[in-house]
Amino acid sequence: MTTTTRRGRRPGRPDTRAAILAAARERFASVGFGGTTIRAVAVDAGVDAALVHHYFGSKDDLFVAALALPVDPRAVIGAALAGPVEEAAEKLVRTFLSVWDDPGFQPALLATLRRILEPGGDKLIREGFLPVVLLPVGEQLGIDRPELRMPLVASQVIGLILARYVVRIEPIASLDPDRLVAIYAPTIQRYLTGELP
Amino acid sequence: MTTTTRRGRRPGRPDTRAAILAAARERFASVGFGGTTIRAVAVDAGVDAALVHHYFGSKDDLFVAALALPVDPRAVIGAALAGPVEEAAEKLVRTFLSVWDDPGFQPALLATLRRILEPGGDKLIREGFLPVVLLPVGEQLGIDRPELRMPLVASQVIGLILARYVVRIEPIASLDPDRLVAIYAPTIQRYLTGELP
Repeated sequence: MTTTTRRGRRPGRPDTRAAILAAARERFASVGFGGTTIRAVAVDAGVDAALVHHYFGSKDDLFVAALALPVDPRAVIGAALAGPVEEAAEKLVRTFLSVWDDPGFQPALLATLRRILEPGGDKLIREGFLPVVLLPVGEQLGIDRPELRMPLVASQVIGLILARYVVRIEPIASLDPDRLVAIYAPTIQRYLTGELP
Repeated sequence: MTTTTRRGRRPGRPDTRAAILAAARERFASVGFGGTTIRAVAVDAGVDAALVHHYFGSKDDLFVAALALPVDPRAVIGAALAGPVEEAAEKLVRTFLSVWDDPGFQPALLATLRRILEPGGDKLIREGFLPVVLLPVGEQLGIDRPELRMPLVASQVIGLILARYVVRIEPIASLDPDRLVAIYAPTIQRYLTGELP
């Protein structure tokens, strides 16, 4: 039992982890995903680069961790999108709503969203979320022109999220998820696989 | 010439106007559009209610003024929507882009958007922008269920605005307006007049 307690605590380590995350957030926000290196984050946090890899894995993983999301969007979206691409939009909207509607996740998701919308946060999306999370989903789906289609998808999903959870416009804020899926899936599906100019 | 200078300056008045606007913004943000009265704003600003009416007209007008928008959205949207409802989406997207793309308007529009996205700003939209600006547009268009359709329109327009001007996701940030109109108008038109569940 004493051993378990010690293992659970790992004295000093939570601070190191937090210091690395804080340094990573600052770097990603100030110089973007592309300009951030694991080495620079390690220097800022006063630790060895190997320790950053040990805690967080790749730079992609560190970026997702720095977003402080309650779930790894790559895993959630990836699982939701297994299956025929013609059903992808419905699954995508349903998954987004189920994660965002979850009261255990929503506060952290809102906090992340607000940080992204603050000045400087745009780089997190442009140079991180888009290439690390969104474009790989498009490639996984095998759609053409994912670099055009996935941002279009994002532009409707973010609008839905703002309307339902941030601004809480009625009736979007309280509509049944099934109803929202039926309303928004055709839009998303057109952006994913429809004819586009 | 001296007279002209005096007229232009109107000593004291710009401060009064600013004080009323500041009081109005605070009221609208803290107690919402519905909870705000011209009388309360006047008391907060230390002026007579008649002076608020004199400067700003109705509560609707005061609200639009408090948004500090470079253009009155009611006038712009109203003019854009004259004509058959089947062409409304195309005109709406084109008008939004032309106003937002204008470097003379964009900074003020972005500032307003950021204020709306801050905590408390949701009330400005929910209790002000929606009933004062958006729903009247739906009624002007003569569409059915404007109280459902206009929020759906807003959810895509706000997503497009965030993607193009705030987060500046490529290719949305630099796509030709004509291309964006062709991409987004079918979505907006479906929300305005299409079959909805």
